Amino acid sequence: MEFDLIDLIRQRAAGERADVALGIGDDAALLAPPPDHELAVAIDTLVDGAHCPAATEPADIGWKSLAVNLSDLAAMGATPAWALLSLTLPDADGDFVRAFADGFAELARRHDVALVGGDTAHGPLSVSVCVHGFVPRGQALRRDGARVGDAVYVTGTPGDAAAALRCLQASDVVASTLRGRLDRPVPRVATGLALRSLAHACIDVSDGLVADLGHICRASGVGMDIDVDRLPLSDALMEQVDAATARKLALGGGDDYELCFTAPRDDRVLQAVARVGGNATCIGAVIAGSTVRVLDHGNDITPSRHGWEHFSA
Amino acid sequence: MEFDLIDLIRQRAAGERADVALGIGDDAALLAPPPDHELAVAIDTLVDGAHCPAATEPADIGWKSLAVNLSDLAAMGATPAWALLSLTLPDADGDFVRAFADGFAELARRHDVALVGGDTAHGPLSVSVCVHGFVPRGQALRRDGARVGDAVYVTGTPGDAAAALRCLQASDVVASTLRGRLDRPVPRVATGLALRSLAHACIDVSDGLVADLGHICRASGVGMDIDVDRLPLSDALMEQVDAATARKLALGGGDDYELCFTAPRDDRVLQAVARVGGNATCIGAVIAGSTVRVLDHGNDITPSRHGWEHFSA
Repeated sequence: MEFDLIDLIRQRAAGERADVALGIGDDAALLAPPPDHELAVAIDTLVDGAHCPAATEPADIGWKSLAVNLSDLAAMGATPAWALLSLTLPDADGDFVRAFADGFAELARRHDVALVGGDTAHGPLSVSVCVHGFVPRGQALRRDGARVGDAVYVTGTPGDAAAALRCLQASDVVASTLRGRLDRPVPRVATGLALRSLAHACIDVSDGLVADLGHICRASGVGMDIDVDRLPLSDALMEQVDAATARKLALGGGDDYELCFTAPRDDRVLQAVARVGGNATCIGAVIAGSTVRVLDHGNDITPSRHGWEHFSA
Repeated sequence: MEFDLIDLIRQRAAGERADVALGIGDDAALLAPPPDHELAVAIDTLVDGAHCPAATEPADIGWKSLAVNLSDLAAMGATPAWALLSLTLPDADGDFVRAFADGFAELARRHDVALVGGDTAHGPLSVSVCVHGFVPRGQALRRDGARVGDAVYVTGTPGDAAAALRCLQASDVVASTLRGRLDRPVPRVATGLALRSLAHACIDVSDGLVADLGHICRASGVGMDIDVDRLPLSDALMEQVDAATARKLALGGGDDYELCFTAPRDDRVLQAVARVGGNATCIGAVIAGSTVRVLDHGNDITPSRHGWEHFSA
């Protein structure tokens, strides 16, 4: 069964890549990384229920399992290249696998990602993906380069995915825009590449904006002031929940897979992001210190660490 | 929790490697593959119950999750280098994680494997590992190079792991030698490296000897005759089960993680394997054809395809 399933997905994913010397079908893939580049490698697992609400479509699970990994490459400023997939399924359900393959392959094609390996197992639904990308040596966007005086930026509109999850959990009706942001997050690959020579530090928003900015603070030895009024909230979010909840979800909700980054306060940053079809908003500044402060008209409204951390599934 | 758990394992694994530019703690690891080499990459998942009997020690699960992956690199003739680990656990059980880390790290240290990334999730126990190794360009051992006239070899004593599993499932007492072969398979890394310039085709025994030799036949467009009398059966196996069962387990049982390979019938092959402390036995020959035949004093006793394939979990 193993190769049939995995091969089905491979066929729907990217075409041939010249750097794949040997793809699926042997004990390991043989790959040829480009010279003078570093290989960026990440692994992430989606578990049924914890990361995907019960009603998630199989095609969306396929998409998201790759998206959360490409988001890690985007945050490094890496160009995606290869993926391996480990799929655990309760039974060999052909309909599920075909739909899963469609979603996975649709995103893989967009980024010319070749599926080069994988395995399947019997068990409760779980999907592990390991992705590989390339960065010219020394040019990766890391978490540890933020400097006092940098501006703090976020792409897109954080909070949307968390709003969708919250409504689903309460069995409320969810706007399709928000549901799409939860089920089909768009990894900000082009933005990450555009930021390579501009940003000092970068991370993707998976745990929640404040939590993830905190990771940059710890790695860089800096603090941050975030101005709550500058948070870019989507119309869909504002229509779904009240203003206080919208802020809370934007600051604390996870699963957005946007990028947050620090860079000099310079028009070239926003221009570079816009040039690749992305958008980013300045939401604060890097200061001396060690933690993230959230300010509302100058008043510190930073909640306890606990308050913002969503359940880390 | 994520980095704490993964970092605990990293600390117990290999020391620093010069080719790890950035290890655990960012969105992705940054790695520097050596020039003029291909990267061999494989992923494999262990699911509780399916791959590890219920009573398997956490340290053995840690060992085995890496061993099955290093076995894939061994079968390619690759030198292991880096691993990523995705660990799904029902709860944050410190004792389990420490023991798991000990087993994983013990094997990682033996092969100078650095843990460069990972994630953790809540859910039913499942372990995905993705490993990376190096092979000088064009020198990997593949499945598709077997030639008519080659001898067929297998390392070690196949059937032991399957015998242990069979006894455990029947609640019989299992000899500790056999149990160790199931819980702590030893990836034949040094043997794989020694075979690089000698073997024409190679695979590791995970599905079962006949099934895995069949993979070589299909990839190489050849057939094989296997002489059942030449199967290297361990004393422990012969003491645990009757002779007919021992043969059946050796031919059809999985989970041995030995290597089977084809190479010219030449003393240098066995000498090269012996030089690195391994052992191999010639069990047959590559012939024109497309399938594996099992012969007992010249009589074809090949069972139906179904008969040898163990449940592919």
